Amino acid sequence: MTKVFAYDNLFEFARKVFIKIGCNESDALTATKVLLAADLRGIDSHGVARLSGYIRLWDANRINANAEIKIVHETQSTATVDGDSGLGLIVAPHAMQIAIEKATTAGTGWVSVKNSNHFGIAAVHAMLALEQDMIGIATTNASALVAPTFSKERLLGTNPVCVVVPAGEQPPFVADMATTTAANGKLEILQRRRGVAPAGWIQDENGNPTTDPHQLKIGGALLPLGGDREHGSHKGYALGAIVDILSGVLSGANYGPWVPPFPAYIDMPGNMPGDGVGHFFGAMRIDAFRPAEEFKKNMDQWINRFRSAVPVNENQKVVIPGDPERETEKERMQTGIPVMGPVIDDLRYLSERFEIEFMIKD
Amino acid sequence: MTKVFAYDNLFEFARKVFIKIGCNESDALTATKVLLAADLRGIDSHGVARLSGYIRLWDANRINANAEIKIVHETQSTATVDGDSGLGLIVAPHAMQIAIEKATTAGTGWVSVKNSNHFGIAAVHAMLALEQDMIGIATTNASALVAPTFSKERLLGTNPVCVVVPAGEQPPFVADMATTTAANGKLEILQRRRGVAPAGWIQDENGNPTTDPHQLKIGGALLPLGGDREHGSHKGYALGAIVDILSGVLSGANYGPWVPPFPAYIDMPGNMPGDGVGHFFGAMRIDAFRPAEEFKKNMDQWINRFRSAVPVNENQKVVIPGDPERETEKERMQTGIPVMGPVIDDLRYLSERFEIEFMIKD
Repeated sequence: MTKVFAYDNLFEFARKVFIKIGCNESDALTATKVLLAADLRGIDSHGVARLSGYIRLWDANRINANAEIKIVHETQSTATVDGDSGLGLIVAPHAMQIAIEKATTAGTGWVSVKNSNHFGIAAVHAMLALEQDMIGIATTNASALVAPTFSKERLLGTNPVCVVVPAGEQPPFVADMATTTAANGKLEILQRRRGVAPAGWIQDENGNPTTDPHQLKIGGALLPLGGDREHGSHKGYALGAIVDILSGVLSGANYGPWVPPFPAYIDMPGNMPGDGVGHFFGAMRIDAFRPAEEFKKNMDQWINRFRSAVPVNENQKVVIPGDPERETEKERMQTGIPVMGPVIDDLRYLSERFEIEFMIKD
Repeated sequence: MTKVFAYDNLFEFARKVFIKIGCNESDALTATKVLLAADLRGIDSHGVARLSGYIRLWDANRINANAEIKIVHETQSTATVDGDSGLGLIVAPHAMQIAIEKATTAGTGWVSVKNSNHFGIAAVHAMLALEQDMIGIATTNASALVAPTFSKERLLGTNPVCVVVPAGEQPPFVADMATTTAANGKLEILQRRRGVAPAGWIQDENGNPTTDPHQLKIGGALLPLGGDREHGSHKGYALGAIVDILSGVLSGANYGPWVPPFPAYIDMPGNMPGDGVGHFFGAMRIDAFRPAEEFKKNMDQWINRFRSAVPVNENQKVVIPGDPERETEKERMQTGIPVMGPVIDDLRYLSERFEIEFMIKD
């Protein structure tokens, strides 16, 4: 059964869990902020629902709560960061901060990260650039769930791309998307409900189209954005590949089928060519290209023009990327975060194990 | 009727046309090389088929054959370039060269371009980075043919994204894609043949799905990659928007519905907020992140692994982005470039108008 929890209570609980596994105060705060940003923005699959998953990775010695994150290679506008098996939730904002600092002096900053783990939602990292009047970019690779066009093998993760752009009077443009037709979280919901997936979302173990979300658990695969060749899946495959190359190959992390899985009970792939999961971050100072005020005026016009585009149906206006998540965040900050029964059970287990008061009355 | 022409003959003809409109020797060579790269790589819609279109833009005073291309703003890793209404075929390689030079010193280079025109295929520009062991990026906006998700209005161009990555023993990874389900060139072919478009490619003037490619000429629109909301068209829309913002808003060019049309007989949009068409280029030195030899070894492994992915059907192996175009190029260099009847008529007109010998026997 789903219950609603106040943001502050969930925050306090998660923060204490991170402290218990050995994070310092500052890192625990960062990890919690990043994790709960997903719940606030309505990406429930990436928020507290994953807290116990991170702890299981720590139990399996796949996460280092005292990681020494360091730059191992750099130029004026670039850095390669070794995450030292740290929590992606902590490694990612650290690396994004380096990108922002590089951009402050060189105009742009680009950071490729190896030896990290799942970093939560991409948008929360990229959005750090907004406060500095910069365009922010964040990508990550992930363990293989997606078959390239024409294949029945899973070789790519859902490899999200996030690009955020500051505006003036308008809220920022925030595009954060898996490079698949549908994010894995949506399939998980359908699996739980025994629902039917739309055509073009998944294929079965033989590579045939299917609408049965259960097929994903018995050898099937998610499909790249586009679904099939006729509808452009070779483009979704290429986008996922670009993310994999920038995050994994460029940093010296793993890539393709060798990216470590998030569930701790799944064995690590054999013959891994790199270190951990890979990310890629970018920051571009607006005024490295033109005066920020001019840009923002044009960006406001861009947003207003698209928002007022003639809709097909009057009751569904055109949406600017980032609008729905921002509305959810506003709402959930006031009314609380809905958490599903199985997730509550997980949190209760963590509460008992780490002797942290379960702040939320039920 | 389609006839086949030798590359060198078409090259010589196009080069002379560019000289006749006032390009200097070096610019004419560049423009021809870029234009014909499309024909060689099998993107027939962007090659000699457009030569007479560029000349019509010149006739309409929308192209300056003696453009003074200049940097108007720069930092260590960035530049904004004013193309001075020059041919995109010349402005784009010039700007990409600046990105490469910036990368040589700063690690990466990023160039946003305003006041340009149609630049041919994106890949030919991005691929300039490969010779320097750099990752290359090229995007451009274009006049509005695409409706954002939920709208019946055309507000975006087909706005391609190109990312190229050098490998070691393997040929490079070259992804070059319109951010729509299908490129406009494919629709033009269907229109000529009175063919039927697959679902998800286009909509009619009321925003309803249609398979009639003719609808594009009477108020319909191309659809963003994904086709409809259920199949992820909001992601294709976001990708097209990102290209528009980086190419148009960041440079001070036009954007959205204000991007100048390629056909010279279409009036310019009113109240244009910027200058000309916009492009965006990037170059990232591999060794700004890790030793190039290590990267290339991993990249070879990446390519080999994906190329040997288990196929759904034995006769259709998995393709690495760039494979099909490279094969076409190899073939056409030897056997020649097929040119369709109406394009031959256009070339013959240019031959008579500019008194250039039509090199090709027919």
